[in-house]
Amino acid sequence: MSTTTAYDDLCRRHERQHRLAHLQSIASWDQSANMPAKGNEARSLALAEMGGLLHQLATDGALKELLARAEGEALDEVQRANLREMQRAWRASNALPQALVEAKSLANSRCEHAWRSQRPANDWAGYVENLREVVRLHREEAKFLADSSGLGLYDALMDQYEPGMRAAEVDRVFGDLRSWLPGLIRDVQAKQAQETTLQPVGPFSKAAQRALGHDAMQLMGFDFEAGRLDESAHPFCGGVPEDVRMTTRYREDSFMQSLMGTIHETGHGRYEQNLRRDWLGQPIANARSMGLHESQSLSFEMQLGSHPAFASLLRPLLVKHLGDQPAFEEGNLHRLLTRVHPGYIRVDADEVTYPAHVILRYEIERPLIEGLIEVDDIPALWDAKMMELLGLDTRGNYKDGCMQDVHWGGGLFGYFPCYTLGAMYAAQWFAAMRREMPDLDARIARGELSAVFDWLNAKIWSQGSRYETPELVQRASGETLNPAHFKAHLQSRYL
Amino acid sequence: MSTTTAYDDLCRRHERQHRLAHLQSIASWDQSANMPAKGNEARSLALAEMGGLLHQLATDGALKELLARAEGEALDEVQRANLREMQRAWRASNALPQALVEAKSLANSRCEHAWRSQRPANDWAGYVENLREVVRLHREEAKFLADSSGLGLYDALMDQYEPGMRAAEVDRVFGDLRSWLPGLIRDVQAKQAQETTLQPVGPFSKAAQRALGHDAMQLMGFDFEAGRLDESAHPFCGGVPEDVRMTTRYREDSFMQSLMGTIHETGHGRYEQNLRRDWLGQPIANARSMGLHESQSLSFEMQLGSHPAFASLLRPLLVKHLGDQPAFEEGNLHRLLTRVHPGYIRVDADEVTYPAHVILRYEIERPLIEGLIEVDDIPALWDAKMMELLGLDTRGNYKDGCMQDVHWGGGLFGYFPCYTLGAMYAAQWFAAMRREMPDLDARIARGELSAVFDWLNAKIWSQGSRYETPELVQRASGETLNPAHFKAHLQSRYL
Repeated sequence: MSTTTAYDDLCRRHERQHRLAHLQSIASWDQSANMPAKGNEARSLALAEMGGLLHQLATDGALKELLARAEGEALDEVQRANLREMQRAWRASNALPQALVEAKSLANSRCEHAWRSQRPANDWAGYVENLREVVRLHREEAKFLADSSGLGLYDALMDQYEPGMRAAEVDRVFGDLRSWLPGLIRDVQAKQAQETTLQPVGPFSKAAQRALGHDAMQLMGFDFEAGRLDESAHPFCGGVPEDVRMTTRYREDSFMQSLMGTIHETGHGRYEQNLRRDWLGQPIANARSMGLHESQSLSFEMQLGSHPAFASLLRPLLVKHLGDQPAFEEGNLHRLLTRVHPGYIRVDADEVTYPAHVILRYEIERPLIEGLIEVDDIPALWDAKMMELLGLDTRGNYKDGCMQDVHWGGGLFGYFPCYTLGAMYAAQWFAAMRREMPDLDARIARGELSAVFDWLNAKIWSQGSRYETPELVQRASGETLNPAHFKAHLQSRYL
Repeated sequence: MSTTTAYDDLCRRHERQHRLAHLQSIASWDQSANMPAKGNEARSLALAEMGGLLHQLATDGALKELLARAEGEALDEVQRANLREMQRAWRASNALPQALVEAKSLANSRCEHAWRSQRPANDWAGYVENLREVVRLHREEAKFLADSSGLGLYDALMDQYEPGMRAAEVDRVFGDLRSWLPGLIRDVQAKQAQETTLQPVGPFSKAAQRALGHDAMQLMGFDFEAGRLDESAHPFCGGVPEDVRMTTRYREDSFMQSLMGTIHETGHGRYEQNLRRDWLGQPIANARSMGLHESQSLSFEMQLGSHPAFASLLRPLLVKHLGDQPAFEEGNLHRLLTRVHPGYIRVDADEVTYPAHVILRYEIERPLIEGLIEVDDIPALWDAKMMELLGLDTRGNYKDGCMQDVHWGGGLFGYFPCYTLGAMYAAQWFAAMRREMPDLDARIARGELSAVFDWLNAKIWSQGSRYETPELVQRASGETLNPAHFKAHLQSRYL
């Protein structure tokens, strides 16, 4: 008889899933970045087949006993952490019937793909039919997950992205935000109304923007031997840790969205690229949570991007690729980078108005999943909340309203809060860095961004999923989630 | 109990493999077209895992009895053809142990990937170490396949690409070729030495060549909603029928290789794009064989590309994308398109010297697989045969010699003869077309290429694997493989 432990058996099974999931990641990225229209049906079927297979492997009848036996085996701390993550994954997978997993994958793929042409056509009527089916399936999913975990319907979905986070906590944090954010937005706007800010004058060719984006990624430390930048309708960071696939989109009349979006995705990318190589294929190699992931992209885009010294690092790249112009003067550039302006599009939103977008999504998707509202109610709610939170009229403008991104169409219910939790974590990291390195801002001003990257690498990237989120946050910053740092950051930077 | 037939069960299993293989195709294309260096190890492991899984599905213990039961079920002609192809696949898969399948996939991936940097470095010593392992595994494969099929070692490998073709037949056909080809090459060179041909003057930007390639694909009827053109070190046509992924490579000093290579791959692409949509997922939807596939690419690149009227179709595209120059005058352009010149690189070879490259590969790979020579013998044999067949000195020039393409490194032993069989089939198609359409050349001259495409679609593309190769060839052209058409084609076009 072999002396293989149950733990070893579990690891081999996990590695197999990890390898097959690699193909799924790349094919999904390709679906968004490369695939022509007529390829979608076959791709969706292929991804659904793989989704079903991975679910089958994750729910294999032998796992329950293996997990129980491994519990009793002599394991070190790292192995113990792997086992904890395997148990978490097992619980989540076994809560769902395979047919539901496959149906979800198919419905999400179809909805996402159709959205690509429906969005430019402002075709809510077409989109809502696909979305209805996606919501139906995710309500079913929430029910299964809630039944198995004892969590609420929305908590059960959110737990997939931000393990341990609860709607009650989100309510508390977002409730606090709602109390001071509208006032802060008004104050910042009043202050900025006094300033003169020159707008860059385009057009800016795609080729020049692409080259600028590459240089910006280099500035932020992206490893081009382990990833690439392409284009897609909705920017994202996909692929695998060994081969990170970032995407952006270009508009010739403006380069800032694409540039800062690229810097944002580079934060995600570096997290993935710096997960411990010797752990890859083990559960603890994975990034900890979506909120933690967003804390990296926002550390790059917002904490560094809005830093008073960042304009001086960016200016030479702009001049190199776009030619010089008055708007690229450092003071003006900083004003452009910190300009607060309520707008329709979440991914283009500034740091101050962004949380308003997230609160809006949360306040719609939670009752939607809980069955308190229906998909047909979304546009009216969207219009009302955009007016209330940001003073914007979105009636009839689905394209820049509830069809602006494809999270819901792709089934990502429970994800949105992670963005603002991420912004809070990011502020907390920089507060901790400044306590540890009193000269941090001087070093950033000298272009020594490695001070930031090294800290993030040591405290977050290289830690993977070794610790549960609260412990990771505590170890990194000396305290658990503390939203006061985010408020302090916004006030000190924008007022 | 369900009334499902064994045949239905087999079809469902096949469809599952078909869907998973979709992901493998896309990830393999990506590996060549997109993947950065550090992604290779994980990608190779993922592809090997999938190779193993597909092999596992193809060798499932239940299949033997299902295939036997389906034999006795009431099936129509199409179902009968599907069953024949499933039996063929079952025999081939069951001859190989799973460990060998995985080891091959891994060794091929590693060797191919290393070749990408070893080739420009002319690093035979590095390449041969990987190649040794690839050859060792494919000799093992040949042994297993030969044992199970009763075929010779080389026949057993070739049968995977060109079912039913045997080395004895290749010997006969290539023996005939060898008897008149060197003389023909000399005669054509002597004739062409009298002509004055202007060379295009570069440089030709990558962007202009890319746009030119796209227009040429459009001219040849490629459907851009079901495929795309990208770049890779070695041009190929991959992807899936619903989403064909063609690649090319560009040199700024010359556009002809890339342009005609693109037209070549477009022939492969259109075959795939026009396989019957209502059959996709069934075995008979697949392209019939590699020789048949090459007959399509060579119908495009050679039969049409060297047609006296083709220059007039190409000229406006060249002028549009590269500007006008004397070399683009129609007569000169035709001379460029039909120029015969012994050269190092097979994929850049003209139609007349190309078979010499294939004979050389065949005469090396066959004894290599049979264990009569070793990988270390390749360079000396290569040098001797290049001198003998084409009068070229390749000593020390591995880059443009035995490392010029990655077929062997990727494990494609038994594939090379398909190229020249394809050239013969292509000549046979055009001979049949001219019998059926006496005005074919006039129609081509008027730019009515649809006359050719419609014939190929009706006779080849839409037929998939419905018939065995000899029957398909007979139905399409009224006779089985007849190499006389190829000889007649070369003589009439080049002398």
